[in-house]
Amino acid sequence: MSMMMDHSILFDHARTSRIGLPEAVFCDGKPLPALQELLARFGRDSKKPVLFTRLLPEIFNAIPKDLQLQYDYHVLSRTAFGTTMPLKQKGSVAIVSAGTSDGFVTWEAARTLQYLGIRYAVFEDCGVAGLWRLIERLDEINTFSAVIVIAGLDAALASVLGGLTPKPIFGVPTSVGYGIARAGKTALASMLTSCAPGLGIMNIDNGYGAACAAARVVNSL
Amino acid sequence: MSMMMDHSILFDHARTSRIGLPEAVFCDGKPLPALQELLARFGRDSKKPVLFTRLLPEIFNAIPKDLQLQYDYHVLSRTAFGTTMPLKQKGSVAIVSAGTSDGFVTWEAARTLQYLGIRYAVFEDCGVAGLWRLIERLDEINTFSAVIVIAGLDAALASVLGGLTPKPIFGVPTSVGYGIARAGKTALASMLTSCAPGLGIMNIDNGYGAACAAARVVNSL
Amino acid sequence: MSMMMDHSILFDHARTSRIGLPEAVFCDGKPLPALQELLARFGRDSKKPVLFTRLLPEIFNAIPKDLQLQYDYHVLSRTAFGTTMPLKQKGSVAIVSAGTSDGFVTWEAARTLQYLGIRYAVFEDCGVAGLWRLIERLDEINTFSAVIVIAGLDAALASVLGGLTPKPIFGVPTSVGYGIARAGKTALASMLTSCAPGLGIMNIDNGYGAACAAARVVNSL
Amino acid sequence: MSMMMDHSILFDHARTSRIGLPEAVFCDGKPLPALQELLARFGRDSKKPVLFTRLLPEIFNAIPKDLQLQYDYHVLSRTAFGTTMPLKQKGSVAIVSAGTSDGFVTWEAARTLQYLGIRYAVFEDCGVAGLWRLIERLDEINTFSAVIVIAGLDAALASVLGGLTPKPIFGVPTSVGYGIARAGKTALASMLTSCAPGLGIMNIDNGYGAACAAARVVNSL
Amino acid sequence: MSMMMDHSILFDHARTSRIGLPEAVFCDGKPLPALQELLARFGRDSKKPVLFTRLLPEIFNAIPKDLQLQYDYHVLSRTAFGTTMPLKQKGSVAIVSAGTSDGFVTWEAARTLQYLGIRYAVFEDCGVAGLWRLIERLDEINTFSAVIVIAGLDAALASVLGGLTPKPIFGVPTSVGYGIARAGKTALASMLTSCAPGLGIMNIDNGYGAACAAARVVNSL
Amino acid sequence: MSMMMDHSILFDHARTSRIGLPEAVFCDGKPLPALQELLARFGRDSKKPVLFTRLLPEIFNAIPKDLQLQYDYHVLSRTAFGTTMPLKQKGSVAIVSAGTSDGFVTWEAARTLQYLGIRYAVFEDCGVAGLWRLIERLDEINTFSAVIVIAGLDAALASVLGGLTPKPIFGVPTSVGYGIARAGKTALASMLTSCAPGLGIMNIDNGYGAACAAARVVNSL
Amino acid sequence: MSMMMDHSILFDHARTSRIGLPEAVFCDGKPLPALQELLARFGRDSKKPVLFTRLLPEIFNAIPKDLQLQYDYHVLSRTAFGTTMPLKQKGSVAIVSAGTSDGFVTWEAARTLQYLGIRYAVFEDCGVAGLWRLIERLDEINTFSAVIVIAGLDAALASVLGGLTPKPIFGVPTSVGYGIARAGKTALASMLTSCAPGLGIMNIDNGYGAACAAARVVNSL
Amino acid sequence: MSMMMDHSILFDHARTSRIGLPEAVFCDGKPLPALQELLARFGRDSKKPVLFTRLLPEIFNAIPKDLQLQYDYHVLSRTAFGTTMPLKQKGSVAIVSAGTSDGFVTWEAARTLQYLGIRYAVFEDCGVAGLWRLIERLDEINTFSAVIVIAGLDAALASVLGGLTPKPIFGVPTSVGYGIARAGKTALASMLTSCAPGLGIMNIDNGYGAACAAARVVNSL
Repeated sequence: MSMMMDHSILFDHARTSRIGLPEAVFCDGKPLPALQELLARFGRDSKKPVLFTRLLPEIFNAIPKDLQLQYDYHVLSRTAFGTTMPLKQKGSVAIVSAGTSDGFVTWEAARTLQYLGIRYAVFEDCGVAGLWRLIERLDEINTFSAVIVIAGLDAALASVLGGLTPKPIFGVPTSVGYGIARAGKTALASMLTSCAPGLGIMNIDNGYGAACAAARVVNSL
Repeated sequence: MSMMMDHSILFDHARTSRIGLPEAVFCDGKPLPALQELLARFGRDSKKPVLFTRLLPEIFNAIPKDLQLQYDYHVLSRTAFGTTMPLKQKGSVAIVSAGTSDGFVTWEAARTLQYLGIRYAVFEDCGVAGLWRLIERLDEINTFSAVIVIAGLDAALASVLGGLTPKPIFGVPTSVGYGIARAGKTALASMLTSCAPGLGIMNIDNGYGAACAAARVVNSL
Repeated sequence: MSMMMDHSILFDHARTSRIGLPEAVFCDGKPLPALQELLARFGRDSKKPVLFTRLLPEIFNAIPKDLQLQYDYHVLSRTAFGTTMPLKQKGSVAIVSAGTSDGFVTWEAARTLQYLGIRYAVFEDCGVAGLWRLIERLDEINTFSAVIVIAGLDAALASVLGGLTPKPIFGVPTSVGYGIARAGKTALASMLTSCAPGLGIMNIDNGYGAACAAARVVNSL
Repeated sequence: MSMMMDHSILFDHARTSRIGLPEAVFCDGKPLPALQELLARFGRDSKKPVLFTRLLPEIFNAIPKDLQLQYDYHVLSRTAFGTTMPLKQKGSVAIVSAGTSDGFVTWEAARTLQYLGIRYAVFEDCGVAGLWRLIERLDEINTFSAVIVIAGLDAALASVLGGLTPKPIFGVPTSVGYGIARAGKTALASMLTSCAPGLGIMNIDNGYGAACAAARVVNSL
Repeated sequence: MSMMMDHSILFDHARTSRIGLPEAVFCDGKPLPALQELLARFGRDSKKPVLFTRLLPEIFNAIPKDLQLQYDYHVLSRTAFGTTMPLKQKGSVAIVSAGTSDGFVTWEAARTLQYLGIRYAVFEDCGVAGLWRLIERLDEINTFSAVIVIAGLDAALASVLGGLTPKPIFGVPTSVGYGIARAGKTALASMLTSCAPGLGIMNIDNGYGAACAAARVVNSL
Repeated sequence: MSMMMDHSILFDHARTSRIGLPEAVFCDGKPLPALQELLARFGRDSKKPVLFTRLLPEIFNAIPKDLQLQYDYHVLSRTAFGTTMPLKQKGSVAIVSAGTSDGFVTWEAARTLQYLGIRYAVFEDCGVAGLWRLIERLDEINTFSAVIVIAGLDAALASVLGGLTPKPIFGVPTSVGYGIARAGKTALASMLTSCAPGLGIMNIDNGYGAACAAARVVNSL
Repeated sequence: MSMMMDHSILFDHARTSRIGLPEAVFCDGKPLPALQELLARFGRDSKKPVLFTRLLPEIFNAIPKDLQLQYDYHVLSRTAFGTTMPLKQKGSVAIVSAGTSDGFVTWEAARTLQYLGIRYAVFEDCGVAGLWRLIERLDEINTFSAVIVIAGLDAALASVLGGLTPKPIFGVPTSVGYGIARAGKTALASMLTSCAPGLGIMNIDNGYGAACAAARVVNSL
Repeated sequence: MSMMMDHSILFDHARTSRIGLPEAVFCDGKPLPALQELLARFGRDSKKPVLFTRLLPEIFNAIPKDLQLQYDYHVLSRTAFGTTMPLKQKGSVAIVSAGTSDGFVTWEAARTLQYLGIRYAVFEDCGVAGLWRLIERLDEINTFSAVIVIAGLDAALASVLGGLTPKPIFGVPTSVGYGIARAGKTALASMLTSCAPGLGIMNIDNGYGAACAAARVVNSL
């Protein structure tokens, strides 16, 4: 009765040429068969590299072993890729986070940059309750082309760092915290109302998005 | 038909002996005749001093001139009192605020302390976007018995100061800001989720409450 | 009794050297005398240029005429400056907005860029309900170094444009709309959840912030 | 002690004649015995066809096999029916969705239309981050009598499609997304504030409702 | 310095041919000069009819008298048009509202239909607290091609009427109410969760949108 | 073109016989001419008494003086009625409020009871910060048939009184307060979560509703 | 070091004499050992009857069998009691619910009434999408002393029934629904804004509270 | 490619000298290996005592037995420490809670005080529905240097106790409750709007924070 179309996923392979960023697969909520089919299509020797984000270990471990071997999988960040892009000659990104609990976001950003061929460094445990941890590393942070700041709770690090760096800076609030932290909504609102000028803010836990924003800057240099 | 009681306001004059803090009149929303009657009852020579808060200039200016003269009225903080309490021998409070826009709250706290006979000092413009402004004054701040921190927007000052002072510290989020600052709700949530331990937080713009909290500490010394 | 400090505003004149952006005065909520004093201090021949934002016409018109004459005041954007910074040799910014109702934000961004010495162009009425208006101008938009996208309501323009430009892109949700638009909170959430990767988002109506974010990019070129 | 009524469910079998839509059973939250009894009552040869929605596979698989065989069950959409209604001679519905993650809603709408005897086609992966996917299929979409648009995140597809089709159009926001997507509340608010005129919006994930709305249109032709 | 485009408003005159609905001007938030220019452009003898919505009486009365005379202005609905479209031969719309307080929305819908050349009737005071008021008029309501239901507070009328009519039905929650009615957000959520199947819901107070949705149905007949 | 019905308001005069409560007119949001017409219809000698609530003094003062004279108008409660109902032989209601700021709600409840012919008494200033004020009057309060408790802020009075009286008890949260009091939403949520069992709660500021709830109890005796 | 008090639970056995309602144990969130101890203390022959609410089957089944046998446990309502109170001579309560999905709340109310010795009847499936189901049973409902109305989603039943019964009426919104139903918050707001006068509303799913409220009425007869 | 730093956690051991409170480890959300490493580093004979909070039993039981033996672990409060600080000579803290369901928060506060070497006593079951439970113990409570009040639901205990004690007082709202209690957000807002003056409020369930706030007071004596 219906005239359903073949519903194989329409990939946006022109995206790289159009916006400089290849398509990625957000795995959360996609059923296992669909993910397995996608992973089979874009493995190590695929000409069309794809980044998989929010790929839970229990999902990754459920696919065939030989398929697993075609991927570089990273548990904490829940990311996988078969092939990365060539290392860019210009540009680098500093990723500064408040605490180790933010690691799943920090490393999603780091892994996305690695996949995109962009140099980066991670500076963890810079939360403002112990200001010296940030101050000591500030000069090094300011040698990078762009800065990503990652923090949960009240995300005060965004304001402090935003007042200390002249670089393009992107904030990622994390869902770390409880009660009125409201799964990151407080950190998000806090970053958006920072009195430090010119911070571009991402959705909660969106390390991938911050890496893409930084990549847009690096691609412009 | 009804057996309405005489509805003259029942004052809680035993409050001072019970909790160490005299009653205050929150004027916002009370009709002019009621306020005028109250102001007439508790002027300069009243044996029962009362603090009036949220007393708008247009209201104060609408009462008879001779009644006005019985009060020490302060426009920015919208407070009035006829008589203050004797200066306490022990204890003092530092009031640290992020910016001059927070002044109406900062000075409500300051005026409440003045009324309660407690020494205080105000440190304005300590917002974290220019960290040096706070750092320069930190040693002096730490000479006080308790600290009140007042900030709007993302209220990052609370976390930073909370990590730098060992004193009892009370945070007052202010309604300064726009958009997702949501009239202080973001600053409130931000202070409540601060990673600096042991901050007691007040309702938005509640400078009076913070002064009372600090007074409870000073009264305990 | 109190040992109040002189509460003259502590200006952060080192900000330019520290983060490449001079301090600005957010006028909303500051009392007239304070604003008048600040305007007197930073007029046309001041060596320390300052940008005034959210300066309402009724406030500007209330200051002395000769003081008014020292400023370039722009009604729609509610901004004023006495002196602008020298025009940068590199970099330019496209400001793309959904409709004329967003003009007060669009022009706050434009005026901030003008003050910072950055070339810009404004593309209004690009809302997606008439897609051709955006498509026709896309090639020109992509000649700029960075893009600012400004939209209220559902802010669908952010996703559409984010999928069509490779440039660093910053979104400003506006408070335009009614009902469930919730004074811009829907546009804000909408931009933050855009499926186009790498958009850095600002607080509602924060045209100034987007201009600063774009300036950080231009300063990096 | 109590005079409890027999609590067998009161079915609204007159609904079809009254509003042109037969009753459906929303299974979520109903205990297994109640569902089993209902499934037993309305199987393949029942004269009173009933659609079961939100019928989880683990529930369906828990009922007796012979009862399962009386139903056409569809896992992704979590729907079941024993008998469908005769195919209508007039009218058809296009179901356009942003991505495959929205499939559970897309197919709830599709299956409801199939049950109601209405021709439909599904157009998936039309999200606006890759506009060409929608544009290519627009002419075909406009051959249908009504359009259902299904999208999560910022649901920008609703505005774009609403500006390109003259047909009655119904939007279903989905719970796809994370963080400030707030389980579909952002997509819902976004659709409701669309600047494209005349979209009728449904509750989050309510594919069934959109199909009923489209059926009201088809029934009117 | 800037290369600003001429910012005359880009009108979407192709909208009628594309989606069957001419463009409308939402006046709220637009400055007086812009509105005056638009009203001058689209008066009685304009070949391109335009509907003005949310046009406050104080704005309309501020424009020149001769310009006023070119428009049919309706105070309660805050709408104006110079010319209406030819009366359609097919289709009609019933507008059913809960109470007279909803009148500003009810008549925005009615006036939009009038402008679009669609027959309509208004049925006010049908709130469910007095069910007989609706029941008495139900048969007449069901003679129309589509139904618009308008209600504030708990909007229970939507569910009741949705269960009694087979017609395409569109709900408009209104901002009528106080407290937890939250300016229409409760009515909106209430309509969206109605157990009556197939209601398409509009933004709060969006009478214009409901008329457009009904027009899409009438245009399809 | 339209076939508009005469839109004179359909009054529900059967309401008294149906639910024991006559219709009332909620004046807020109704235009002056409509209110004037209604007031003219239901004055002192009308056979059909009607209560007007939320009737602002500026509205009441704007109607003709002779019409004003037909009504018993009460400023604080913003209520008016021409005729009251005969005094009931059974039943009475205690109205207990936290503070004088709640007076506009307290007296709306009181005036509604007076209109309905039910005996009542008002006990103000019973807020729990001074518990003795409530305790002293508890025995008297418990002589009434039903209790209405009215409080803003955290509405703690509802829990305390609910644990001290066996009577049917109805809570009205008020919009008194600022900041996170959120115009009464905190008081509302607080009353709804009271650990004292069996409180029936009303919308914010709905003194009229509480009086009607108490009247349902008195009517049942 | 600490001077911890013995933390055996302080039971409020005077509650019955004070407010006419015995204490109940809300089991949700209490650890198994604490519940087991309480169940052991208040079994069938206890002189101090206690009602246990929110007692999950998995908890009840985990206690010793002989302890289970001392209780009348009811799965759907998750309630248990050892002994009930003597049947009251006066008063009875009608419990009217929208659908069988609301059963867990409906029967919590019913079981609480049974425990309190109050006659009741349950009328399920009265949702307004099929109005006849309510109308047919209205006369019988109105023979009871008080009415409890239970509904989720948009809870329209509360307004409809509130306009048809003169009895004291209490509404319980349920968490039934999805999406913008927000786990009952929409139903709660909807009931609170009902235009039917004099409904006392309970927290979401609080069938126990509604029964207590009705008991306060029955106790007053 | 990356120049990742060694990401061993940077401990803030100077915190004790700086703010008088040693660092604590919030375990929730940290992966097992990280926690195990931290527990191994800070066991019984460590010179640098650390408090572990939110350490779930299933995590603690998963670490090696010999490591478990180095810690004093407390299940209800989910806290562990190897060594406590020397008992302070001055100061003590009363912890007053509404009910046993609040125990997990009550004992987190108590255990933190024990770890910090501060004398304390716990007063449970003081909820205001049975006021006598609090009143009986009030004199004893007022012998302590500071008071912590812990309550969920409407948290009315905070207001009542705040009006009865002159001591520094800190409120901790708990997530106890359901429906509109919104996992503690109602209790939080309720405490923040208390009319008792000078309460410092903590995030939901933050017993640790309240103990730190009280410790700041005790450290000041």
